Amino acid sequence: MVFFKVESWTGRVLLRDVQVLTLYQGRCTNSRRTSPVPVLQCVGGTAGCVFVPRVVQCLNKGWNGVDVQWECKTDMDQKYRFGRIEVSCEGYHYPIDPYILKGSCGLEYTLDLAATGT
Amino acid sequence: MVFFKVESWTGRVLLRDVQVLTLYQGRCTNSRRTSPVPVLQCVGGTAGCVFVPRVVQCLNKGWNGVDVQWECKTDMDQKYRFGRIEVSCEGYHYPIDPYILKGSCGLEYTLDLAATGT
Repeated sequence: MVFFKVESWTGRVLLRDVQVLTLYQGRCTNSRRTSPVPVLQCVGGTAGCVFVPRVVQCLNKGWNGVDVQWECKTDMDQKYRFGRIEVSCEGYHYPIDPYILKGSCGLEYTLDLAATGT
Repeated sequence: MVFFKVESWTGRVLLRDVQVLTLYQGRCTNSRRTSPVPVLQCVGGTAGCVFVPRVVQCLNKGWNGVDVQWECKTDMDQKYRFGRIEVSCEGYHYPIDPYILKGSCGLEYTLDLAATGT
């Protein structure tokens, strides 16, 4: 018998089991306790928000004892890079629930100008 | 007896009666038949999307026989201006329903560099 940690019938999933997030421009997060927000939100940075990614993938790089560490990538010109990234998901039953609502994760990021090597 | 065109108990409103839309960054549209989308979406333009407005107001400037004409304003530096703007709302019962779902309107816009006078 196999017990799945991903409980598809309840719409919740253990955040630490989420290996990758694929986030599309122009979509909104699922929500149950809170309100939907845009899945991708640029909030500034040295490049402004001049580049708008169509899709961003964030990989779960492991647990630091407090939170999942994410690495986010997108197809963009080398002159830009992500500055600060912050992945937020809706805790299923309460804010710091280790189980999250599926599809509830979103990314806030800053977009910086990459330092050019000489 | 007064009949209100705005039928608050059903969540629908005649689009032509909507005088102003106030649209906030980071929020998503209400939806009933479709999916929520970000209320404000920059989709390019000669300035890229370098400036991210916190709030945009769109005024109903009248009916052109086909659609409502909107004028959208935000607090931004004179060097930027809106290029193309497109307000979309969810028809309540069907796509071209003159009644729309309240809170379902969103704005897609391009952000251009303003021509500088000499």
